[in-house]
Amino acid sequence: MRAIEFNNDIKFHTQYENPVPIEGEALVKVLMAGICNTDIEIIKGYMGFKGILGHEFIGIVEEINSGDQKLINKRVVGEINCACGTCDYCLKGLSTHCPNRDVLGILNKNGCFADYITMPLGNLHEIPDSIANEEAVFVEPLAAAFEILEQIHIKPSNRILILGDGKLGLLTALALNLTMADITLVGKHNSKIDIAKSWGINSILLDQLEITKNYDVIVEATGTIGGFEMAQNLVKARGTIVLKSTVAGSKNINLAPLVIDEISLIGSRCGAFKPAIRALQKKLIDIKPLISGKFKFTEADKALELSKTKGILKVIIDFS
Amino acid sequence: MRAIEFNNDIKFHTQYENPVPIEGEALVKVLMAGICNTDIEIIKGYMGFKGILGHEFIGIVEEINSGDQKLINKRVVGEINCACGTCDYCLKGLSTHCPNRDVLGILNKNGCFADYITMPLGNLHEIPDSIANEEAVFVEPLAAAFEILEQIHIKPSNRILILGDGKLGLLTALALNLTMADITLVGKHNSKIDIAKSWGINSILLDQLEITKNYDVIVEATGTIGGFEMAQNLVKARGTIVLKSTVAGSKNINLAPLVIDEISLIGSRCGAFKPAIRALQKKLIDIKPLISGKFKFTEADKALELSKTKGILKVIIDFS
Repeated sequence: MRAIEFNNDIKFHTQYENPVPIEGEALVKVLMAGICNTDIEIIKGYMGFKGILGHEFIGIVEEINSGDQKLINKRVVGEINCACGTCDYCLKGLSTHCPNRDVLGILNKNGCFADYITMPLGNLHEIPDSIANEEAVFVEPLAAAFEILEQIHIKPSNRILILGDGKLGLLTALALNLTMADITLVGKHNSKIDIAKSWGINSILLDQLEITKNYDVIVEATGTIGGFEMAQNLVKARGTIVLKSTVAGSKNINLAPLVIDEISLIGSRCGAFKPAIRALQKKLIDIKPLISGKFKFTEADKALELSKTKGILKVIIDFS
Repeated sequence: MRAIEFNNDIKFHTQYENPVPIEGEALVKVLMAGICNTDIEIIKGYMGFKGILGHEFIGIVEEINSGDQKLINKRVVGEINCACGTCDYCLKGLSTHCPNRDVLGILNKNGCFADYITMPLGNLHEIPDSIANEEAVFVEPLAAAFEILEQIHIKPSNRILILGDGKLGLLTALALNLTMADITLVGKHNSKIDIAKSWGINSILLDQLEITKNYDVIVEATGTIGGFEMAQNLVKARGTIVLKSTVAGSKNINLAPLVIDEISLIGSRCGAFKPAIRALQKKLIDIKPLISGKFKFTEADKALELSKTKGILKVIIDFS
């Protein structure tokens, strides 16, 4: 099969050996895959991962090794954390934190930049016909945005500030926009801010932002190490800062203001897929403006290059 | 009246002018006052406060300027934040975060190391006869410990680690011990650990602590800048770190682990007095081992010196 492997450098294989599903796994033929910032970070050395890249996909189930066969020939997306199912975390429903987990294309498991992947049956979710392949590749990052609503209670009367106009910031804006809270997105790029404006979300350039402690909730999605300090200067007493950026490296931070103002700081990562699928199915959010390009496998090198370019949003690789 | 004033240095007055209650305020004759680490920090320059020190007290109401007179001649303690009552925070019940607040002995308001103070009537709480003066001076810091239970849900099945065996750590242990959670207190002083042991709380020296991510909730009460990093290495995925120490200064911190493990970080400060009063009244907690000394005003200099001494817990100044 075709596959994009990272092993010190990137290799574009055309004769990679097909994976074989073990008991309880499905063999999924990949239709489309999305390139995430994490993939770019992995190419730079993040997580020390070696293997086939990619964790955002939509595919068709071709084979199931034992168990319920009802997903055969169905279009599916898949939760990326493949958990052990037996540890304390799994037994408490926190399988995304299973210490024994493999993570698709990130940790100990070949990813979806390939014609075929194997996935535990329980990780797969059928995609309704009304959701296009190009939309379905957003289920994983959109689920990460909805994770914020799993973790904290955002009230319709809250004032929310989203710092960052990258994919994460824009997807967060889409998800939180449904809460009817008073949302402002702040970014550095007119083109991206215009996307949020097209969704009816109040969006401003960073230099237009007044630095006052005026927000109940700040979502830090800048992907930069300076975002946290800015959030500290914008959050109300007893407010919440949601950390979405996974930034490598440390920064000099004074924690005393968090104590004095009794701020809650919430780290937020992957989310459940069902709410994201429902949001796409109900046509309440429009992710299409986030697609910056779609490339066939033969041009996958261009896809990876483009996704590294400043200002570019989601780039899709089409394996169909 | 007698008063201990800080104004670049400490002055022990015997002829300080008595305060006069304005409308809605009570004149309170101070019986006893507790010395807090914050007082010691103020003497070092914290908050830039100048005036009469002290914010932990029990006293008797001698006069009320208009309003309900039922507290006359009653023993009372007082919430230290004197809020405006009209701002957004006050209207939401968050008067401890009122941006216009004065704080007894800390911000714009003379404190309780004196024969008399004035306090807004609404800040005062009557103390039942069954609570001794020496216990009542602990209501303020004990309320700060109960504040943790106002902010987060501690489950009886949780594993809790309290870092720090100072007053804050020990009072936190007393408050959280009532949750029936599995509590461990970690400290550096055998004498203080023995106090927690006498309360039936599992207590260990720092060098006996196994560094594994094994706790649902960590309370950081070390009063040192290194406590946070240790907490990060001990909290489970999806767990909570409660920050109780107000440490001046910054530290190099990597926030990425908070995102990956979806940790909640909660700053925690002052609390409501009623739960602390109820805890003392019900005789479910025994704060007496926390008293390291009690001094008359004539020996107040010795009281302040003693309270700066390593290993010393609460020092009381007796104004009666």
